[in-house]
Amino acid sequence: MTHVLILGAAGMIGARLAMRIAENGTIGGQPVDRLTLADVVEPEAPAIAAAPAALPIETFAADISDPETAERLVCLKPDIIVHLAAIVSGEAEEDFDKGYRVNLEGTLRLLEALRAARHVPRLVFASSIAVYGAPYPERITDEHHLTPLTSYGTQKAICELLIADYSRKGYVDAVGLRLPTIVVRPGKPNKAASGFFSSIIREPLNGEVATLPVPTTVRHWMASPRAAVSFLERAATMDTQPLEGRRNLTMPGISVTVQEQIDTLRELAGQQRVKLIRYQPDERITAIVAGWPRDFNTFRARSLGFAPDRSFTDIVRTYATEEGIRL
Amino acid sequence: MTHVLILGAAGMIGARLAMRIAENGTIGGQPVDRLTLADVVEPEAPAIAAAPAALPIETFAADISDPETAERLVCLKPDIIVHLAAIVSGEAEEDFDKGYRVNLEGTLRLLEALRAARHVPRLVFASSIAVYGAPYPERITDEHHLTPLTSYGTQKAICELLIADYSRKGYVDAVGLRLPTIVVRPGKPNKAASGFFSSIIREPLNGEVATLPVPTTVRHWMASPRAAVSFLERAATMDTQPLEGRRNLTMPGISVTVQEQIDTLRELAGQQRVKLIRYQPDERITAIVAGWPRDFNTFRARSLGFAPDRSFTDIVRTYATEEGIRL
Repeated sequence: MTHVLILGAAGMIGARLAMRIAENGTIGGQPVDRLTLADVVEPEAPAIAAAPAALPIETFAADISDPETAERLVCLKPDIIVHLAAIVSGEAEEDFDKGYRVNLEGTLRLLEALRAARHVPRLVFASSIAVYGAPYPERITDEHHLTPLTSYGTQKAICELLIADYSRKGYVDAVGLRLPTIVVRPGKPNKAASGFFSSIIREPLNGEVATLPVPTTVRHWMASPRAAVSFLERAATMDTQPLEGRRNLTMPGISVTVQEQIDTLRELAGQQRVKLIRYQPDERITAIVAGWPRDFNTFRARSLGFAPDRSFTDIVRTYATEEGIRL
Repeated sequence: MTHVLILGAAGMIGARLAMRIAENGTIGGQPVDRLTLADVVEPEAPAIAAAPAALPIETFAADISDPETAERLVCLKPDIIVHLAAIVSGEAEEDFDKGYRVNLEGTLRLLEALRAARHVPRLVFASSIAVYGAPYPERITDEHHLTPLTSYGTQKAICELLIADYSRKGYVDAVGLRLPTIVVRPGKPNKAASGFFSSIIREPLNGEVATLPVPTTVRHWMASPRAAVSFLERAATMDTQPLEGRRNLTMPGISVTVQEQIDTLRELAGQQRVKLIRYQPDERITAIVAGWPRDFNTFRARSLGFAPDRSFTDIVRTYATEEGIRL
């Protein structure tokens, strides 16, 4: 049986993974008999109508940048650690100290605590396509160098190197996943530069106005929250032997233009909804987005069983179903 | 005028750079008015017959893994820091703690001390081709991903990411150089797995027997000590603007097979010398060497003014001249 620890369990993806484990009593098909949820603020336990089994769920507040936290977590002897805890890109760029303290030192402390305790769990590390920096080839492969253009991307790239070396030495059994931009994010618009990719679908479906700050020719790499959770489950339970020491994988997203997003919205919800998207060019955001990856060759991840969303239409349909919106 | 600090000044390359600066009173053509040499053991000041100018040289013992060392060094306000201090590959692999403490934490402390002091020198960081790991393309470009197969390579790759991010933020003005294997190293044979590349030239030239542990078809990437010092000088004084944020460069070596090394020895010193090379296959060393890079495309470094050795013949001739050996 398996004890799963989720770090960053209060975030959108962490909460969805927790919910899925609680509902199914499994992760990636593997039975789970204990679930521990940690985040800077104590996460809520998933509210499930009918749990299939009596799965004990513990929640607690834990700051991974606190020197004692890692040891405390490792004492729980989790078999699987899903490590989603991070300061996001914008904040890591504004607060250099905090970004390095949480995103680099926090992960390093966790690895060191595992090594000291000689406890070797599966570690699923959430990396990001922010490890890449322009200029790019048309389609980025797993063999392309990492030249992050932000401190956040730098911290993620460093952690990728660390989990590979600690795994090589047998101190942990880690898999790093470079997650695509998650679309459609539920909830309120946020200030992330990538927010509009979700906003231009979410707001119109709710009958609200959305702002599009970039031209419709912009192409980007996306995955649904459902796909992201499936990637984490797969990484948590896969055989790591076929990785041959290359522990970090770019996850399969789909490469979609803003125009294709809008066309999908029109197809599924009609031109009236599309009219709620207002094009308000924003040079700052356009410049940031120009530095982002557009497309990847993820043959490697696919051959290891990571499956992308079928289409952007599928992503929007799933979002609508989950949010109880009729199309 | 310029104050140069060399960290790791007791090593072979550090000592040669110090000697060159002391002899010329310049680094990369730029006048130097103060030279500070530091290493774990206090380095000797270069013994120069006739110094061209009264260049003050200070030497001291400094362990960069000691928490106070970085601050102490930064207080000296060097304009150029040449950072060669490191635990070598074999030791970093055996002593995991020490490798990370010196090679990662030591560099991080130095960067943090510079940031805290708001002092922004040129930093020349000695990286290594050990940041790469097999399998490789036939010729590795600067766009190839870093997948080190050792803790040493991991530590160097992490420092490359750090110096790029700290430079982007304006905390330092760094250049990282991936140095080729240095051949011909003077002195006694050492236990480094790469030692034979020097040994099969050096020992026969001294009339001694050398052991060749790998087949003569093995191809590797080499540079002379003289070329390595010229790379450091160039990096210490170059305009970093054309790097466009990509602060780490693979240095131009020459790609030479062991057979070509032996042919060169025969050509310059005769078949009698070649007969001193004894082929004693060593499976362990053969396996290690199979994971090493063979050839690089270093267009980028060359276009930035880094010049490789002209030929392996030239490398051997220079070695012989420097050591007072008649060919």
